[in-house]
Amino acid sequence: MTAATGLRCIDCDRLHPLEYILSCPDCEGLMYVEYDVGAASQVPFGRLEGAGVWRYAQLLPIANPDHFVSLGEGQTPLIETPRLAREMGLDRLLVKFEGSNPTGTVKDRSTVTAVAAALQFGFDRIGVVTTGNAGSSLGSYAARAGIRAFVFSSATCAKPKVSHIAAATPDFYLYDGDYDAMIGGFDSVIDEGTVFDAGATRNAYKQDGKKTIAYEIFEQMGLQVPDFVIYPIGIGEALLAGQRAFAELKAAGHADSVPRPVCAQSTEADTVIRALETGGPLVPRTIGHTVAEGVAVGDLGPKGEWVLRVTRDDNGLGAASTDREILDWQAKLVRLEGIWAGPTGCVTLPALAKLVRQGAIPKDASVVCLVTETGLKDDAEPAAMTPLAPTVENVRNILLS
Amino acid sequence: MTAATGLRCIDCDRLHPLEYILSCPDCEGLMYVEYDVGAASQVPFGRLEGAGVWRYAQLLPIANPDHFVSLGEGQTPLIETPRLAREMGLDRLLVKFEGSNPTGTVKDRSTVTAVAAALQFGFDRIGVVTTGNAGSSLGSYAARAGIRAFVFSSATCAKPKVSHIAAATPDFYLYDGDYDAMIGGFDSVIDEGTVFDAGATRNAYKQDGKKTIAYEIFEQMGLQVPDFVIYPIGIGEALLAGQRAFAELKAAGHADSVPRPVCAQSTEADTVIRALETGGPLVPRTIGHTVAEGVAVGDLGPKGEWVLRVTRDDNGLGAASTDREILDWQAKLVRLEGIWAGPTGCVTLPALAKLVRQGAIPKDASVVCLVTETGLKDDAEPAAMTPLAPTVENVRNILLS
Repeated sequence: MTAATGLRCIDCDRLHPLEYILSCPDCEGLMYVEYDVGAASQVPFGRLEGAGVWRYAQLLPIANPDHFVSLGEGQTPLIETPRLAREMGLDRLLVKFEGSNPTGTVKDRSTVTAVAAALQFGFDRIGVVTTGNAGSSLGSYAARAGIRAFVFSSATCAKPKVSHIAAATPDFYLYDGDYDAMIGGFDSVIDEGTVFDAGATRNAYKQDGKKTIAYEIFEQMGLQVPDFVIYPIGIGEALLAGQRAFAELKAAGHADSVPRPVCAQSTEADTVIRALETGGPLVPRTIGHTVAEGVAVGDLGPKGEWVLRVTRDDNGLGAASTDREILDWQAKLVRLEGIWAGPTGCVTLPALAKLVRQGAIPKDASVVCLVTETGLKDDAEPAAMTPLAPTVENVRNILLS
Repeated sequence: MTAATGLRCIDCDRLHPLEYILSCPDCEGLMYVEYDVGAASQVPFGRLEGAGVWRYAQLLPIANPDHFVSLGEGQTPLIETPRLAREMGLDRLLVKFEGSNPTGTVKDRSTVTAVAAALQFGFDRIGVVTTGNAGSSLGSYAARAGIRAFVFSSATCAKPKVSHIAAATPDFYLYDGDYDAMIGGFDSVIDEGTVFDAGATRNAYKQDGKKTIAYEIFEQMGLQVPDFVIYPIGIGEALLAGQRAFAELKAAGHADSVPRPVCAQSTEADTVIRALETGGPLVPRTIGHTVAEGVAVGDLGPKGEWVLRVTRDDNGLGAASTDREILDWQAKLVRLEGIWAGPTGCVTLPALAKLVRQGAIPKDASVVCLVTETGLKDDAEPAAMTPLAPTVENVRNILLS
């Protein structure tokens, strides 16, 4: 049923069979799954059967429906946000709210294809290094599939995520230091081959789950694509997968154009934004602390140059935001539209505001802003409040004031 | 477009017009919205257009689509859970996971119709007393609709919920004591009429949003109804709305039967279970502390007798669970199926297990168990863990052990 035909190397352009390989056997380049354009052109968008991510199974790299693990991910709302648009200076703004996924983040989309691929290739162990959300997601989906999940999560991970991961898997470890310190060692052990890779660095099967964001946007907009899509950039999976899916829609004759991608990062971890501004290559940096823990990545590894290339090829933009700006827009989003997202999910908002203010994104552009995480698992200490005594007088004084 | 015809009193059976009244003008009884059976019989289940709760707008009491406030609620997954079924001693078990709603709970379904009704009747203020989840939901949806939300939340409310409500509305107050102490005063001030009632005690418009659980189950099961539905009982809204919706489906000729309802409560707040066991009336009690804060209600008010009547009329069952049992089944749910739910959401699981063990629910019954809340907003302190140093050796020792 899948239209996948092979793994294409982004460097040497050779096509390899659909096996479990993490880099090109010829040149060690990164690879992506290629699909048959003729088959893709026959996908009946707008009239597809089935729910969630597996609705798009033809354009995902899993052959056997027995491996379609699911907890009801995907099919997240694309929300018209008129008050937020006004605050941004836009005529219209659509928010793709990924907090409605089963574990509250966009990660569920790629976790399902990672776990499904582990089953496809006969693995009973899968592992990930995470700042929190990816581990929370993998713990749940591996349990769902009945395989063993090894999760290495940053010690700074929010408590609700720690509780969740600990409940889902006994093979859960916290690590000191940031993501960049941990991922190199993890990848080298993954190469020894006994544990399936659910990391964001290389696995082409995992990344493809995030293509479904683009397909959903396309269907939810009535078989149209927007002018701009704003992506948060940690390792850049959402952008790489989303832009490729949009490109596939165009190549297959479903869409007329590809949206311009916008990279959103924290000022504390802004390597892609710096490269876009200077026009130069990506330079890894030591990151500072940011409230947006999901994008707290200073060394994007081999995917960094790919993110930069796609962004430039697709005429993209970028902007970085301070923690203050992220938290301000988090508050605006819920106060104006009732959407409660975590700081990682809100890193896209000040970036968009900045680019609109600068005139780089025109007022009348069609814009979809990804908000990739629920606010519900944030354990930031709330401001202190003094409880009322539960009396009629107290209620009356407040309600009838 | 709505097939609603009036408000029917559950005590004197008189029909009143669709106005904003909270109790019967003749006898002060509770009321529910009645729908035209002929119109209901024409609703094309399985082929309806639109997403989420408003997909069922014909069977909801809001006339004007301009009032259909939404954040993408409803359309939650109905998950086949084979490992959990085996653990329960059932052949098959379906979990309706409400944690995928925008604020992570089933409350979003009734909040949308409460806020839509506030708009319908021209209110710009709406209020609720809550143990947490309903306030989290109302804060978001009132913001979305651009009206002012007054939220009174128990001081024991989990921190992620406090942060969310505080971010969504400036009119947020914590109260000391339990829900029972607060709700009486609140209801008496609501009767003065300047603030729209989003409480669970009386508002028929609010309650109807929860009918959509039943419609979704019916559609997701291929236009069938299960033999049993397991409901958590706080005030009993989900059961009252769900069973009425199933009864409407039968009356309109869509379904052949009505599922038997099962009431699940905490042993610390078990008034309905006690009444079912003794066969007597409902006796309010002072509640103890329970981890299932959403069902921490010892005085169900006027709805209590109604819940009992419906449960008995529909040949229902009930069982209460200790905190230990609730937490055990919370752990089993995520370890066996990857579904991460809060304690309130898991109060249904040990109740079901108990009734299966007792033979009250047969092994081969068709069962849908509601799991009404995500685990992501739980701030229970996770067990202490010592972080690893991020070295290749540490990763290798763990992954290749």
